[in-house]
Amino acid sequence: MIPRYSRPEMVAIWSPETKFRIWYEIEAHACDAQADLGVIPRENAAAVWKAKDVEFDVARIDEIEAVTKHDVIAFLTHLAEIIGNDEARFVHQGMTSSDVLDTTFNVQLVRAADILLLGVDRVLAALKTRAHEHKFSVRIGRSHGIHAEPTTMGLTFARFYAEMDRNKARLQAARAEIATGAISGAVGTFANIDPAVEEHVCAKLGLTPEPISTQVIPRDRHAMFFATLGVIASSIENIATEIRHMQRTEVLEAEEFFSKGQKGSSAMPHKRNPVLTENLTGLARLVRMSVIPALENVALWHERDISHSSVERAIGPDTTVTLDFALHRLAGVIENLVLYPETMLANMNKFRGLVMSQRVLLALTQAGVSREDSYRLVQRNAMKVWEEGKDFREELLGDAEVLAALSEAEINEKFDLAYHTKHVDTIFNRVFGA
Amino acid sequence: MIPRYSRPEMVAIWSPETKFRIWYEIEAHACDAQADLGVIPRENAAAVWKAKDVEFDVARIDEIEAVTKHDVIAFLTHLAEIIGNDEARFVHQGMTSSDVLDTTFNVQLVRAADILLLGVDRVLAALKTRAHEHKFSVRIGRSHGIHAEPTTMGLTFARFYAEMDRNKARLQAARAEIATGAISGAVGTFANIDPAVEEHVCAKLGLTPEPISTQVIPRDRHAMFFATLGVIASSIENIATEIRHMQRTEVLEAEEFFSKGQKGSSAMPHKRNPVLTENLTGLARLVRMSVIPALENVALWHERDISHSSVERAIGPDTTVTLDFALHRLAGVIENLVLYPETMLANMNKFRGLVMSQRVLLALTQAGVSREDSYRLVQRNAMKVWEEGKDFREELLGDAEVLAALSEAEINEKFDLAYHTKHVDTIFNRVFGA
Amino acid sequence: MIPRYSRPEMVAIWSPETKFRIWYEIEAHACDAQADLGVIPRENAAAVWKAKDVEFDVARIDEIEAVTKHDVIAFLTHLAEIIGNDEARFVHQGMTSSDVLDTTFNVQLVRAADILLLGVDRVLAALKTRAHEHKFSVRIGRSHGIHAEPTTMGLTFARFYAEMDRNKARLQAARAEIATGAISGAVGTFANIDPAVEEHVCAKLGLTPEPISTQVIPRDRHAMFFATLGVIASSIENIATEIRHMQRTEVLEAEEFFSKGQKGSSAMPHKRNPVLTENLTGLARLVRMSVIPALENVALWHERDISHSSVERAIGPDTTVTLDFALHRLAGVIENLVLYPETMLANMNKFRGLVMSQRVLLALTQAGVSREDSYRLVQRNAMKVWEEGKDFREELLGDAEVLAALSEAEINEKFDLAYHTKHVDTIFNRVFGA
Amino acid sequence: MIPRYSRPEMVAIWSPETKFRIWYEIEAHACDAQADLGVIPRENAAAVWKAKDVEFDVARIDEIEAVTKHDVIAFLTHLAEIIGNDEARFVHQGMTSSDVLDTTFNVQLVRAADILLLGVDRVLAALKTRAHEHKFSVRIGRSHGIHAEPTTMGLTFARFYAEMDRNKARLQAARAEIATGAISGAVGTFANIDPAVEEHVCAKLGLTPEPISTQVIPRDRHAMFFATLGVIASSIENIATEIRHMQRTEVLEAEEFFSKGQKGSSAMPHKRNPVLTENLTGLARLVRMSVIPALENVALWHERDISHSSVERAIGPDTTVTLDFALHRLAGVIENLVLYPETMLANMNKFRGLVMSQRVLLALTQAGVSREDSYRLVQRNAMKVWEEGKDFREELLGDAEVLAALSEAEINEKFDLAYHTKHVDTIFNRVFGA
Repeated sequence: MIPRYSRPEMVAIWSPETKFRIWYEIEAHACDAQADLGVIPRENAAAVWKAKDVEFDVARIDEIEAVTKHDVIAFLTHLAEIIGNDEARFVHQGMTSSDVLDTTFNVQLVRAADILLLGVDRVLAALKTRAHEHKFSVRIGRSHGIHAEPTTMGLTFARFYAEMDRNKARLQAARAEIATGAISGAVGTFANIDPAVEEHVCAKLGLTPEPISTQVIPRDRHAMFFATLGVIASSIENIATEIRHMQRTEVLEAEEFFSKGQKGSSAMPHKRNPVLTENLTGLARLVRMSVIPALENVALWHERDISHSSVERAIGPDTTVTLDFALHRLAGVIENLVLYPETMLANMNKFRGLVMSQRVLLALTQAGVSREDSYRLVQRNAMKVWEEGKDFREELLGDAEVLAALSEAEINEKFDLAYHTKHVDTIFNRVFGA
Repeated sequence: MIPRYSRPEMVAIWSPETKFRIWYEIEAHACDAQADLGVIPRENAAAVWKAKDVEFDVARIDEIEAVTKHDVIAFLTHLAEIIGNDEARFVHQGMTSSDVLDTTFNVQLVRAADILLLGVDRVLAALKTRAHEHKFSVRIGRSHGIHAEPTTMGLTFARFYAEMDRNKARLQAARAEIATGAISGAVGTFANIDPAVEEHVCAKLGLTPEPISTQVIPRDRHAMFFATLGVIASSIENIATEIRHMQRTEVLEAEEFFSKGQKGSSAMPHKRNPVLTENLTGLARLVRMSVIPALENVALWHERDISHSSVERAIGPDTTVTLDFALHRLAGVIENLVLYPETMLANMNKFRGLVMSQRVLLALTQAGVSREDSYRLVQRNAMKVWEEGKDFREELLGDAEVLAALSEAEINEKFDLAYHTKHVDTIFNRVFGA
Repeated sequence: MIPRYSRPEMVAIWSPETKFRIWYEIEAHACDAQADLGVIPRENAAAVWKAKDVEFDVARIDEIEAVTKHDVIAFLTHLAEIIGNDEARFVHQGMTSSDVLDTTFNVQLVRAADILLLGVDRVLAALKTRAHEHKFSVRIGRSHGIHAEPTTMGLTFARFYAEMDRNKARLQAARAEIATGAISGAVGTFANIDPAVEEHVCAKLGLTPEPISTQVIPRDRHAMFFATLGVIASSIENIATEIRHMQRTEVLEAEEFFSKGQKGSSAMPHKRNPVLTENLTGLARLVRMSVIPALENVALWHERDISHSSVERAIGPDTTVTLDFALHRLAGVIENLVLYPETMLANMNKFRGLVMSQRVLLALTQAGVSREDSYRLVQRNAMKVWEEGKDFREELLGDAEVLAALSEAEINEKFDLAYHTKHVDTIFNRVFGA
Repeated sequence: MIPRYSRPEMVAIWSPETKFRIWYEIEAHACDAQADLGVIPRENAAAVWKAKDVEFDVARIDEIEAVTKHDVIAFLTHLAEIIGNDEARFVHQGMTSSDVLDTTFNVQLVRAADILLLGVDRVLAALKTRAHEHKFSVRIGRSHGIHAEPTTMGLTFARFYAEMDRNKARLQAARAEIATGAISGAVGTFANIDPAVEEHVCAKLGLTPEPISTQVIPRDRHAMFFATLGVIASSIENIATEIRHMQRTEVLEAEEFFSKGQKGSSAMPHKRNPVLTENLTGLARLVRMSVIPALENVALWHERDISHSSVERAIGPDTTVTLDFALHRLAGVIENLVLYPETMLANMNKFRGLVMSQRVLLALTQAGVSREDSYRLVQRNAMKVWEEGKDFREELLGDAEVLAALSEAEINEKFDLAYHTKHVDTIFNRVFGA
């Protein structure tokens, strides 16, 4: 987790304070359930709630852990200091440390997913707004980086919207993957604790009981979660790459917003670098790098080994914090992106109508000219544009053989941009709803 | 794709014959839709279906491609050879090669997903059967490779079932991800073809129209698809790893089936190697390796670049073929796995009751002995087992201080395996339904 | 291995014929060494060489394997068919299948490395030629895709040369990593075979004896090998990316060679797509994807498990074949790359001298103008260029306040491109030698 | 970077204090070189050294950066505060921020490599010691987790030594990869600064001048560096996996050291978990995960984009800190590993001599018994061992048909462990030198 690439809301999820608070809630709810079952006295369960509004003393817990060498025991000792040793004696009864740790990790991931969903929503809102603003801002579509046919800037935003909307659904599914809890004991048999405790605690924490756990919650869930974050990161890279291309000096159809005072270069006004989207490209790599270790974490030995733990201590916070930051950085970039529709048109016209040559070719064929002749006619006029810098439409209008097949109006119609935008509404309806 | 790790059903999906057949269907359905729209003559559309039952001549198409240097044109030329040049002249009108190629790739992936789902079902059926057979075959649960508390072999199978069942749901979601088609032209604007064509073709092929495409179907879909296969592969590794552990000489709770004639070693009967599950471990790595390039494929430049294409030519077939093979190999391993319940018990008893020491400790505490004293009592008897090879229960029954707190019956009860299996039914109901 | 992305020389290394030939050589040399040691009769060793020029019958070996279920035994049986059962009876004595298989795999990798080195050499030669051709073809250097300061096309080629030259050294090191052989028996103790056999066979095959092996040659070697190929692939992506940028419509400083007949688009002469470099970008992903499984192959269980085998059956051929093809495709692209020095200059002048503004700023400061005033002077003239399309030099020459600090000659000197190319020779000497 | 998995020496390399100190040294040495060249006054260069022993005020620099939004400028401003504005005015002249940042990153990586090399040395020393201690501690070699032939514990340590020794050489090569510096200006042309400055600064910092740089040092170097760390991590996983296997309850040939007070479980003395090596397995995954992003960082756009930066801010510290910690944790585990030679022998004898069956088979054949008969004889005695728990040697000695071919002495000789250890000295000489 790199401070400059983090937002406090997400960082807070991974603080010791948050962790201990969740541990506490698990223990307190478990005591209630144990009291319901008659396993522990009701008053002991009730006593645990005395700590409800107490802020746990992280330094004190660390101090105890330095002695006990066990984090959960250290916490329980501190809890006993607060609610009383006698009152605390049934806390954690029948439970295993992993019951607390694994369930807590999932609570943290669920909260992280909720924050990430807000980030996705912000990106979606920005994309939707910009898509509608530039619904009919015509720009050249490019395949292989080479001019192809006209499209619109709005369609570009709309396709990113559709992609990010899929990511939203994926993230919701990923959230459901890890929204489970387990309180099932040392090897998952509930030998020392009734399944009702797990059910109660999970209900209180907004989790589903893990249908079958071992000492741990199965890690295929987490693999799927991090794989999904990797896909979202790749979509961020996708959008960032488009913007980086648009901002490059020779294209300049868009620029990341530059505040008044901000300088890309001390003296060169054109030196406004797309540093935010370049940064997003790097952040995408960082998010993606958690996918492989998360997959490698699935095959734990027997009822658990602890190899996953160090991995998750790193990728749990790092990946969610980085992705969260990236989503908001991306949203900001899109919200404030400065767009240059005139440059879009100017770029499109770089080849003076040549991008329309296929339409002309098709028209000639449909007008009865043979495919070979059509091609020859288009080609000879295209070459004058390409080699001598002529205007394609004017050349066609001056070519008798062409005029023999197509009227002036028909030729002009081939240069009508509306031809290319006639289905924009249809597509927008598909993407944003009617 | 390695022949020895492939099944013909899946290989067939990726054959040139299958590919051309799908191309043909797309073109033929597109012609129907164009005729419906009045764009092309009905008889031309009808003529295309003359090739319905014709087997395309792959060698001939390759021959044409060697000249035209364009695969789709080569195919269309061959099609014209079959249905007649004149009849074929409206085929592909308004379409772009990518319309055919991308939609075909998704049809192949959908079919691959369907076959994979059958493989998952076979694994699930095997796991379910074995889980019920060994529902109460008690074995020691192990954390960190070290004996912990008793569990049952059935629970082991049941947790793999639950994991694989999640994978089934994930695979169904992944199938939906790539079950889209696009016939939207050079940059996705439908400039030269009506969206109705896309709708018709997709409906006929069992696909959903891609809401918004560029020249290509967006690759976040494929990234999600391959990421999901990577998760499934990791679950296969998980199961394979458990079996490899169980078969190792010192554990020997299970063995891959060895046919009568098969030899692990010419003279050593114990040399039956878990080569299938080791192989599955390697195959899991192979499946997983497609995840990163699939993620890297998402950020194509502008309306498309072709960098994804070579990647998909490799990982499309290789990953689905390998995973398919792995699922069936795994199913076979599970179906035929030879299990040794007596060895499970013998292993559990390696430490002569010591795995029950925590229950005794708890019982002493609950009987009013202080935590420190309880620990001391358990520890001193445990040490005799550990260091002198005594039996834990017998030692306890001969310890006056223990007997002062617990009756003989109470002590014996602590060694009752039923204590550990009492919730197996509950868990099975959660996993397999009541 | 995808046929269209493969070259026959590299494919041949991975053929069954090659594999059996290497097996044969290992067995024959081993017999010689065994005879030298007096372990087997000299005449039996000599007899093995009768098969020296025989082509092994792969179909026959497969046939035998179908019965024996063991590839090495099938080969040995076939060998006995050729040289005689009696003569063959000491072949393979004291050896383990892995001795043959692992040593063979390394021979194949060594040969693959040698072919890859030729590919790297071809790329280097092409880069060197083009670097010298365009040593002083000035083009704008770009950071963040935005114009920065002038550089030369030759420097671009030179830096790719330097990078690829490092890759050559890395590849040589990687070749040394896997240039070892092992004939050390079932667990590497030489219990049944003298180390002298290993030494003799390795010497004959151009390998170093593996200092200590188990049943297999340690896989950290192969991990390093494939990791190195991954780095080389990334350099290919680096060069490919530069070319793709140069070819994009708005930049057009270079183009992949288009043969006379080749068409990017039927009617648009500008539609020449950088499909080769896009393809190289994808191939780079394919090569890189072997790195992770190769790393995962290192931790085999005890003296070996067979999980690495399926991985290597795939990545051995696939990765070397793909990288080999990519190197030659890249070399071809560079050799034939069409460069447009006039467009380079035109692009550089897009902002009419603005890229020189930092030099002017520095000159003003050095002439005694305060930093703030210098900045103000440059900025006000830069803005006229930026907003009104004026020429930067002309504006400066017309600004009295600037002229008060700098003479006309001094101002003109700031626009001298030679200023930026004055160290090109120095750099070339560093890269190519004096 | 996770505090619990980090060592202060390595963490210190990545502190702001260290970073600013290196920045300072680069600037100060550059001033010296500039003075040597006559570009700036000698006294200004000398004045910079006034800050030689000053500790930079990180908080103050952060404060300035909050205003200037530029880290290098903030630092230079702070430096001016220390040495005087006038004295400082030539600092950084002709340089680009990246000159400082990239050279600094490489200095940090070089220092990190040096610390890592110490870690590797400690691991090597530990392995060497344990190898010699247990040179002839016989244990069973296992392929596929199944008993194969005897080997020795010393050979296991020796092979890890050889592997780690290769890693040392790789790490030294990786160190050389990134031991370069660049002071070459905005696009690497030295337009504004003489190459002599780069040479001087690099010499002072123990670096080689980068032969050709752009705005940045080429990232193939860093890719190779991190790929190498990934290989080393995989070797750590390899060793850790062996130890985890050795410690599992059923094998118990070795245990991680447990300090007197340490508890694996409150009451079960056998519950000593190999948590350190499990942790190392996870840490290996964390180190490896930097390989792919480092490879993706190579293809920067043109003369640089900044996408690599965020990646390196994370993986620079995280990967080196984690690997450093892992090396020392591993060294500690090996140094203190508790080994159980008696258990090794007991495990080997689990099948009462059956692991020698192949030697007996070979002896029978060599004694003139046909292959088929030899196999039958061995098999029938082996089966009595396998199925009835008999002792293999005794059975053979009681089998008249066997005795007809082999004398009692000959049979006994087949059970001599010295047969398997006779080349241990040879192998040790290869690994450790004569």
